[in-house]
Amino acid sequence: MELWYTEKQTEYVGMTCKAKGTLMRKRSQYQDIAVIDTEQFGRMLLLDGIVQTTVADEFVYHEMIAHVPLNAHPHPRKVAVIGGGDGGTIREIVKHDTVEKAVLLEIDSEVIETSRRYLPEIACGLDDERVEILIADGIAHIRESKNTYDVIIIDSTDPVGPAVGLFTPEFYGSVYEALKDDGIMVAQTESPYYEPERVRQTYLGVNAHFPITKLYLAYIPSYSSGLWSFTIGAKRHDPAVINRERPQPLTTRYYNVDVHKAAFGLPEFVRELVQP
Amino acid sequence: MELWYTEKQTEYVGMTCKAKGTLMRKRSQYQDIAVIDTEQFGRMLLLDGIVQTTVADEFVYHEMIAHVPLNAHPHPRKVAVIGGGDGGTIREIVKHDTVEKAVLLEIDSEVIETSRRYLPEIACGLDDERVEILIADGIAHIRESKNTYDVIIIDSTDPVGPAVGLFTPEFYGSVYEALKDDGIMVAQTESPYYEPERVRQTYLGVNAHFPITKLYLAYIPSYSSGLWSFTIGAKRHDPAVINRERPQPLTTRYYNVDVHKAAFGLPEFVRELVQP
Repeated sequence: MELWYTEKQTEYVGMTCKAKGTLMRKRSQYQDIAVIDTEQFGRMLLLDGIVQTTVADEFVYHEMIAHVPLNAHPHPRKVAVIGGGDGGTIREIVKHDTVEKAVLLEIDSEVIETSRRYLPEIACGLDDERVEILIADGIAHIRESKNTYDVIIIDSTDPVGPAVGLFTPEFYGSVYEALKDDGIMVAQTESPYYEPERVRQTYLGVNAHFPITKLYLAYIPSYSSGLWSFTIGAKRHDPAVINRERPQPLTTRYYNVDVHKAAFGLPEFVRELVQP
Repeated sequence: MELWYTEKQTEYVGMTCKAKGTLMRKRSQYQDIAVIDTEQFGRMLLLDGIVQTTVADEFVYHEMIAHVPLNAHPHPRKVAVIGGGDGGTIREIVKHDTVEKAVLLEIDSEVIETSRRYLPEIACGLDDERVEILIADGIAHIRESKNTYDVIIIDSTDPVGPAVGLFTPEFYGSVYEALKDDGIMVAQTESPYYEPERVRQTYLGVNAHFPITKLYLAYIPSYSSGLWSFTIGAKRHDPAVINRERPQPLTTRYYNVDVHKAAFGLPEFVRELVQP
């Protein structure tokens, strides 16, 4: 038997991977959760049939969503992650010795349990003593938080299902209020090739609240088109610049000082997408 | 009927695209040539079953293989392209007003004929009066050329079939000799995710001859993994820097001054791949 998993990334294009088998599949209160084992990417977490993270290339996404805002901030102490139940973003955050507290706001406890069991190399950071895990609606928590966080990371699924509310301008307004005076937010914002209008709308939504809004990019082979965008909003510090005296962490596989700057060098068609 | 074209990018992963149909397919002296029409990428040229270029995203590859070396050179006048029978690289080269002559060295005339007929928006530059088309073995031509070109662009297929000889250190030695004293070469060199050893070997092959050797990257959704590398060798000028007084061209969809610099900002795992 040859088993192939195929994800339709648009109506017209997909990625197909040879799979060894399904390790788990269940329906939680919020979504369909599955872990499959693939030859190319190793174990792969799927939510509602969409690749969220794979053992082979998760380092790109998690390093880039965490270290860019954390090194753009001169002294990140208190950080919130919305979504991110697999734990990969938390694992990267706790590599920063300035961080005193990292709050994970995940709505679906079964994502965390699945990751702990099937993706321990991704979930491992969740056991750090500075981490607080709240099984909660991130939107409500952020709306109630004022002047609290140095960095807020929106590590969500695609803007369907439980994540829809994380892509609204109103939510970015709440994030602005929840950040301290020199706070920085970042959100994963889909593929500029396949979802250009989504990228533009998210950028405009963040830009409606934050005086400095930028887009940066990373190459993620298991994600739609391979080109992924992150939208970053800052109250004071230019996020394209490393504002830490000693940028961290020292051991990475994707992120480095050159990549921090290069990620903001936008191809012309992406630059035009985020013109006001 | 639903028709899907699937390219296996490795033994274990592939891209699959919904196709409207096959526009042509034939066997030339050198390879299997096909043009299919897809929903996502428009018309697509396949050589030996591998995507070479698509109407939707060809601009990335062609702009990046042409404008980086041409803007790194202070006065590019005479340029050679080895392979590149579709004409896209030539189309970008002739946008530079310093260029007096662009020589296309394509071994397979049927690739040129196919592109002229089915991909006119890519082949259009071939009619520029500064272009000389030689149906010839690029390896032999370059071996016989000494101190002739300002820029040599190796726009080849993957290193199987007729292109194998274009990936050898000996060939890069011939390219070095064929370049003028301040010449620059560039070669397309596969995906660092899926072909890391190939990227490393090519880099070392170029580096064995050129005092300045660098790698740069671009995001090409229809190519394997979405992340593509180019290896650039220079005799005198740092290719990561724009050495033209007025960089050209003014109208692009991917390349710009920021992208020129950013493309050389290598992710850590790629940087490690090209350590000597």
